[in-house]
Amino acid sequence: MLSARDLAADIRSGRTTPEAVLEQVAAAIAAHESEVGAFVTLDLDSARAAARAPGLAATPLSGLPVGVKDILDTRDMPTTYGSPIYAGYRPRTDAPVVAMTRRAGGVVVGKTETTEFAFLQPTRTRNPRRLTFSPGGSSAGSAAAVAAGMLPLALGTQTGGSVIRPAAFCGVTGYKPTFRLLPTLGMKTFSWHLDTVGLFGARVRDVAFAADAIAGRGLDIGEETAEAPRIAIVRTARASAASPDAHAALEAAARAAEARGARIFDLELPEALEAADAIHGTVQDFEAALSLGDELDYDGDRLSPLLRGHLKAARAIPPDLYDGARRTAKRARHALGDVFAEVDAILTFSAPGPAPEGFATTGSAIFNRLWTLMGCPAINVAGLSAANGMPVGVQVVGRFGRDRQALAVASLVEAAITA
Amino acid sequence: MLSARDLAADIRSGRTTPEAVLEQVAAAIAAHESEVGAFVTLDLDSARAAARAPGLAATPLSGLPVGVKDILDTRDMPTTYGSPIYAGYRPRTDAPVVAMTRRAGGVVVGKTETTEFAFLQPTRTRNPRRLTFSPGGSSAGSAAAVAAGMLPLALGTQTGGSVIRPAAFCGVTGYKPTFRLLPTLGMKTFSWHLDTVGLFGARVRDVAFAADAIAGRGLDIGEETAEAPRIAIVRTARASAASPDAHAALEAAARAAEARGARIFDLELPEALEAADAIHGTVQDFEAALSLGDELDYDGDRLSPLLRGHLKAARAIPPDLYDGARRTAKRARHALGDVFAEVDAILTFSAPGPAPEGFATTGSAIFNRLWTLMGCPAINVAGLSAANGMPVGVQVVGRFGRDRQALAVASLVEAAITA
Repeated sequence: MLSARDLAADIRSGRTTPEAVLEQVAAAIAAHESEVGAFVTLDLDSARAAARAPGLAATPLSGLPVGVKDILDTRDMPTTYGSPIYAGYRPRTDAPVVAMTRRAGGVVVGKTETTEFAFLQPTRTRNPRRLTFSPGGSSAGSAAAVAAGMLPLALGTQTGGSVIRPAAFCGVTGYKPTFRLLPTLGMKTFSWHLDTVGLFGARVRDVAFAADAIAGRGLDIGEETAEAPRIAIVRTARASAASPDAHAALEAAARAAEARGARIFDLELPEALEAADAIHGTVQDFEAALSLGDELDYDGDRLSPLLRGHLKAARAIPPDLYDGARRTAKRARHALGDVFAEVDAILTFSAPGPAPEGFATTGSAIFNRLWTLMGCPAINVAGLSAANGMPVGVQVVGRFGRDRQALAVASLVEAAITA
Repeated sequence: MLSARDLAADIRSGRTTPEAVLEQVAAAIAAHESEVGAFVTLDLDSARAAARAPGLAATPLSGLPVGVKDILDTRDMPTTYGSPIYAGYRPRTDAPVVAMTRRAGGVVVGKTETTEFAFLQPTRTRNPRRLTFSPGGSSAGSAAAVAAGMLPLALGTQTGGSVIRPAAFCGVTGYKPTFRLLPTLGMKTFSWHLDTVGLFGARVRDVAFAADAIAGRGLDIGEETAEAPRIAIVRTARASAASPDAHAALEAAARAAEARGARIFDLELPEALEAADAIHGTVQDFEAALSLGDELDYDGDRLSPLLRGHLKAARAIPPDLYDGARRTAKRARHALGDVFAEVDAILTFSAPGPAPEGFATTGSAIFNRLWTLMGCPAINVAGLSAANGMPVGVQVVGRFGRDRQALAVASLVEAAITA
């Protein structure tokens, strides 16, 4: 895989150039894309032109090639949202996060595959770790492109588990920042209280570097790792849904982090948090029925049966139930604040297990949805494997707005398990 | 003015029909629109077709004609956002709040004038109360159309004071619901933490009825008014910016409400709230620079000098300042929650005074921006006048999520001052 942070350092020091890195990426794409299918749109010619811009090496992203999930608007490339309804659609403006990425010196090379409106209908993308396995979803193309070494960086989004899950399945770092750290405007909305823009990179320091560059916050942790952090191991009330591989990975990560000085203890989530897990779907689906109501009304026959049925059912959610769910979420956020008074980070499952074999499903968000609803930062840490050799991730969850700390803990866990 | 609630009742009881109400509206438009200039787009033919739909009388809105501020997307009418950049622009989908309005049985007759991207550059709209006066902004067309009796209902939006201010200047009811009670998706974003969809109608009961119908919440207060509510009179640290007219109106409203059984007392806002007032602009402008960054970069010469200069300056706001402003807002929301433990509603100025004469400015949001930032419901109550005979509004502010109570207090104040 390509390290964004290392490549940028190499560009800045003159050891390489944006154009050379782009050619490296182009060669990797030529070698792997036909098998992996990570891109909906590729525009290497425009990228080459952009990579020649004077002064690019000195920008925060130093001209690094970036992939953009095709759920985010781009003014110079079609944006299809993974749906035939939007075939050939050309948005008038860049999503602000895309504009921020370009302004930071990122060179957009293409749009990456997304499931239909970032929901559950699988894409054509294959898992680069083994091509007969699912890459997960919905940010399938972004995770797979980074895993295959075709990109050092890619933007994705998460409404349930769409960053952490594909990162875990493909064995890359996925970072879902604090809600709205990266603006969601120009993302095709599924659920406005949940949709979150995230990043994929090789290692924790790479996504931290990229988030720093794009968002202009002090997140570039470099070699820094958290010192003796208090890490709560959280298995949740849904622990039985986690496979032996997932339990083994969580155990291994906890022990490795402990050996590196982390203070590890088990934590049962307060009732208020477990209650919130159950109502993620109510918030998501009530809003999705409104967000995609027009598509359902006027283009319903071009939705997948999966999404069409889901949206039709979602229309029946009473507003009172939704309002109650939002109150439940608010209480849970307070309870989580109390938890984080005592711990620096939570370590939990990224997914129920390694990637599913075949392409019938993109996997489950059962260990992600609560953290999306809470809006707190979450990072998939890669490096461990299942019995079948496929990657198994573990998830570091941090306090709302304390992304740097979450990244530093994730980097410690990463260093520990990859040592 | 046309009462939405009464008209809907008349339609349901068979005393009139959606088609007859539409013709009444068409006649008023024919009589006043050339002077007032409230509409960007009018499509009475499509509205007539929609008004003939079978079963319309039995819908929540009973086929009432509705105007939609031209900052909200409509799939069947151009949407210009008040900017030449979007001349002739046809969005692919209805904004969800427009779809909800249609689904509730509202008949969209046209798009109403908005200032450029709902910021400060005045529109061509004139104040129906006196044509040489500003109607306020940014929802100028919606407020003016209702004031002129051209519409019983109109949708508007508020990021600073864009619902309450024009309602006050035009002498109509303006209702800014709790943040996100009406979805903002499909509104051209200025500031995602502030943009709020609101409603204009003749009286408080009319906007309550319409919000109930559109949002499906129990907000239709009918003849109900709050019983002996505790009302805090809040003049704020900016009281000196309010004109003698505004002070007199607030005094008169307070005394009238007291005579109707309200428990009235003066309240100085806690420091945390006064501090938040000062940072509304930081939140708004940081987000506006991202939301409209593409227009600034690629179509800057087609922005008004006012907005272009504002956005350019906004780009210089450091992320840390913005993050700090958001923390200030969060603290203020907690402090406001404490205030509302002791009071049922706040009564304050809607604007510094009556509408400005001439069209150089749409007026000031100085008495609105804090409540927009807090996300709590606010209602302009009409019925009082300045020395020059122009309307002066007073503003009822309620607790976050307690819109029904806020409306019931507003209805009491309205009954008191119009008695």
